[in-house]
Amino acid sequence: MQTQFERLKSNKAFELFVIGVIVVSALLIGAKTYTLPQSVVDATIALDYFITLFFLVEITIRFIAEQNKKRFFHSFWNTFDTLIVVVSLVPIDNSEMAVVGRLIRVFRVLRMVSIIPELRILLTSLVKALPQLGYVMLLMFIIFYIYAAVGSTLFHHINPDLWGDITISLLTLFRVMTFEDWTDVMYETMEVYSLSWIYYLTFIFLSAFAFLNMVIGIVVNVMEQEHAKARADKLKENGQTEVTMQDLQQQIAELKMIIQSKR
Amino acid sequence: MQTQFERLKSNKAFELFVIGVIVVSALLIGAKTYTLPQSVVDATIALDYFITLFFLVEITIRFIAEQNKKRFFHSFWNTFDTLIVVVSLVPIDNSEMAVVGRLIRVFRVLRMVSIIPELRILLTSLVKALPQLGYVMLLMFIIFYIYAAVGSTLFHHINPDLWGDITISLLTLFRVMTFEDWTDVMYETMEVYSLSWIYYLTFIFLSAFAFLNMVIGIVVNVMEQEHAKARADKLKENGQTEVTMQDLQQQIAELKMIIQSKR
Amino acid sequence: MQTQFERLKSNKAFELFVIGVIVVSALLIGAKTYTLPQSVVDATIALDYFITLFFLVEITIRFIAEQNKKRFFHSFWNTFDTLIVVVSLVPIDNSEMAVVGRLIRVFRVLRMVSIIPELRILLTSLVKALPQLGYVMLLMFIIFYIYAAVGSTLFHHINPDLWGDITISLLTLFRVMTFEDWTDVMYETMEVYSLSWIYYLTFIFLSAFAFLNMVIGIVVNVMEQEHAKARADKLKENGQTEVTMQDLQQQIAELKMIIQSKR
Amino acid sequence: MQTQFERLKSNKAFELFVIGVIVVSALLIGAKTYTLPQSVVDATIALDYFITLFFLVEITIRFIAEQNKKRFFHSFWNTFDTLIVVVSLVPIDNSEMAVVGRLIRVFRVLRMVSIIPELRILLTSLVKALPQLGYVMLLMFIIFYIYAAVGSTLFHHINPDLWGDITISLLTLFRVMTFEDWTDVMYETMEVYSLSWIYYLTFIFLSAFAFLNMVIGIVVNVMEQEHAKARADKLKENGQTEVTMQDLQQQIAELKMIIQSKR
Repeated sequence: MQTQFERLKSNKAFELFVIGVIVVSALLIGAKTYTLPQSVVDATIALDYFITLFFLVEITIRFIAEQNKKRFFHSFWNTFDTLIVVVSLVPIDNSEMAVVGRLIRVFRVLRMVSIIPELRILLTSLVKALPQLGYVMLLMFIIFYIYAAVGSTLFHHINPDLWGDITISLLTLFRVMTFEDWTDVMYETMEVYSLSWIYYLTFIFLSAFAFLNMVIGIVVNVMEQEHAKARADKLKENGQTEVTMQDLQQQIAELKMIIQSKR
Repeated sequence: MQTQFERLKSNKAFELFVIGVIVVSALLIGAKTYTLPQSVVDATIALDYFITLFFLVEITIRFIAEQNKKRFFHSFWNTFDTLIVVVSLVPIDNSEMAVVGRLIRVFRVLRMVSIIPELRILLTSLVKALPQLGYVMLLMFIIFYIYAAVGSTLFHHINPDLWGDITISLLTLFRVMTFEDWTDVMYETMEVYSLSWIYYLTFIFLSAFAFLNMVIGIVVNVMEQEHAKARADKLKENGQTEVTMQDLQQQIAELKMIIQSKR
Repeated sequence: MQTQFERLKSNKAFELFVIGVIVVSALLIGAKTYTLPQSVVDATIALDYFITLFFLVEITIRFIAEQNKKRFFHSFWNTFDTLIVVVSLVPIDNSEMAVVGRLIRVFRVLRMVSIIPELRILLTSLVKALPQLGYVMLLMFIIFYIYAAVGSTLFHHINPDLWGDITISLLTLFRVMTFEDWTDVMYETMEVYSLSWIYYLTFIFLSAFAFLNMVIGIVVNVMEQEHAKARADKLKENGQTEVTMQDLQQQIAELKMIIQSKR
Repeated sequence: MQTQFERLKSNKAFELFVIGVIVVSALLIGAKTYTLPQSVVDATIALDYFITLFFLVEITIRFIAEQNKKRFFHSFWNTFDTLIVVVSLVPIDNSEMAVVGRLIRVFRVLRMVSIIPELRILLTSLVKALPQLGYVMLLMFIIFYIYAAVGSTLFHHINPDLWGDITISLLTLFRVMTFEDWTDVMYETMEVYSLSWIYYLTFIFLSAFAFLNMVIGIVVNVMEQEHAKARADKLKENGQTEVTMQDLQQQIAELKMIIQSKR
């Protein structure tokens, strides 16, 4: 049976059908946000049952097809899929919890990422790029934190909605960083402290500069990787190993020795 | 006659005259958006007839000049030009359809792209760059879709104009992504769900990060192509073929063999 | 006298003094935008006379110092300086023209660019980069023009202030491109044409994509130039000429011939 | 004692404890922005005394651990740390000065940068990148200054809040550059001078273009450095020195001489 399921799992048509069901489940989630006639609502409930069941069957097939049962849950995406399936099995009748049930079903759309390898690779590479930027993000957070502390200390009494405490101030500063009506925020405080434009301008310069460095960090990283990969691919394709300037130098030196030894 | 038309088609002066007529037709379209005195309106109608006729003649010349009639419509731009010309032949007297007639004439400006080879190349390269970004765009759409589904589920009752259904929510999220008065949207939902800033901030981070990757993808691609082209151009110009490290290594090895064989 | 003036012109102290006068003239222009007491106003007028006179003297020295009088006006910056100086000589008593006089004096600040070689090089390289982008800018203008024509045709009656004619529509589209309250513009037209979001979204995508290509075009160009320059500088510094793979190949081939000829 | 302190200073656990205290002091600063019950306020005051004392002890340990006392203050970060510690020792009872006291304590968060070497390196490299951009920033300031002078001359009477004098105009132009409600500023002046959109559009183009060049300048610089570093690292790791095309050419030439001398 395992061999049969393994064959089914790697069957192209089956995979396409799974993608189809995920797309339908995504459309279903979208459809539910509209006001629908009762008959359609009933249909969506039936469809929902079918999708839940199908996903359960599919994950079971994949589990049985896996030779090493332990390794199955070592894969992040397998665990993720199982979690989504198990959680949507929980019956939600309580009207208050209905919203939670709908939200859980939304994450079924993410199964699109887990089923299409290219998307999985893309997401993995995005996630991998994050920690490399760790220190720049820490520096940026320190800049934000200092400005938020100064802001909520000085501007607290001007507008508590924007500068009430450090959390709100951090949000306000993020707003300033996105240039979203930041002059309204500035003009308000400039009425009390006429020099407070210095606060905003230095913040914008610092955060923009740090952000720019973050972006450049990613760009440089990605380009390095792409170049290394392209070089490796080209060599592989020609069945060659990389030859460096050093290798050539070595070979010329060898040649020299041979010639000299002939004297 | 075909040879004559072929000569006419590739005549520089004729080409410039065609560009001139396209520019005039573009200006005419612009002029019509102003309120004009009746005499000028009459003149524009006459000019419009002339341009329509001229384009018909021009496309006919180009069709006759083409040796292989079948290949004529294999070119996207020939088909495009013919369509524009044919559609503007349809007489539109009905006042309601007059707007449609004017809109069709607007696309005549696009003939500028079809007549200037540099613009055609530019547009082709833009269009070619799109599918390479397919998976990043799919990932981005998934992010948008999930957030739109969550948004319209949670915020539906707060402001139906922004979160009424999934289509409107997608539009609202695009607005948030462009930072356009996004804090107004956020402050509104924060009054009900005080933690909803998490929703907006994670969305902005995710979409900005995915967008950044898309941009870098294009940059890396374009630069690779430019470099490859520049390298190829340089070699061509010198009448040389590319020499790699591997070639040099091979030649040194040959040299070694020759020397050794002489012992 | 010419030699004396030539020596004066290339004197470092004199150059610094000229820069000093330009800075003072810039500060003077800034000071005039404030409401000043009468005594200071009198002082500024006196200072203004002095600066005008000094610039006249300075340009005369530079003209006399130039050996080839004809070549003097071949330099864009010499012509520019002379123009600024001559125009500010015109006495402006008429109160209506006083504003024009002040505006002309503003351009004296640009003499900072003409006197500092590094700024002159920078500006020249900026201006040189523009025509290379000519076709991308033409394509962008065509996109803008088509959308403006469609916009003023369809939305004219909704809001003439935004879509009255093609010029105003172009301005509105530029506003949309900078994301400045673009949703306000969109929501207004969506009340009449509920599908008009397609118009805005396609426009944003097209213009952003074209803009992105323009930026990448500049980046690639600048980096190519920088690399070429860095490579050339390094070679110059070592007193070497560039050696290519081809050169090495050639030399190895020569070596081979020498060895073979010895048999 | 010095050796003991030196050992303590470079002790990993001690360093982590110092970081811990800095984090606590940062959280304390954040906590103070909330309205706290009296008991917690008392606790924060006690904690504040402890942190001040701890920082004093820590800086003393570092000072004693330093063998060359003079060199201690040559380090920017040592001076910075000492300043922060000394200034927070000043007792502030006066209620008006209490805000100043709190602001000084905010800068303790910056000690995070001084204690973590990676952040210190990051900040140093950011600061180092700035002067290289000196001339671009000067050019940008000249553009801003000229436009501000023109703006406050022409638009002064339209809205003194935006164009009152050159300082306010510079702020307004920075606002326009960030696209923050720039059309509101423009529409207001267009009512008087209908052609004033030229002023805004040329300013946006010029400043965006100059800014773009600044960004590219940084990118090119950083990438050059990264590449040079990567190349140097790779060579170091292999225990090799860099081999250039020129070196290879030289060696082939030597080989040629050896062969020819054997004739």
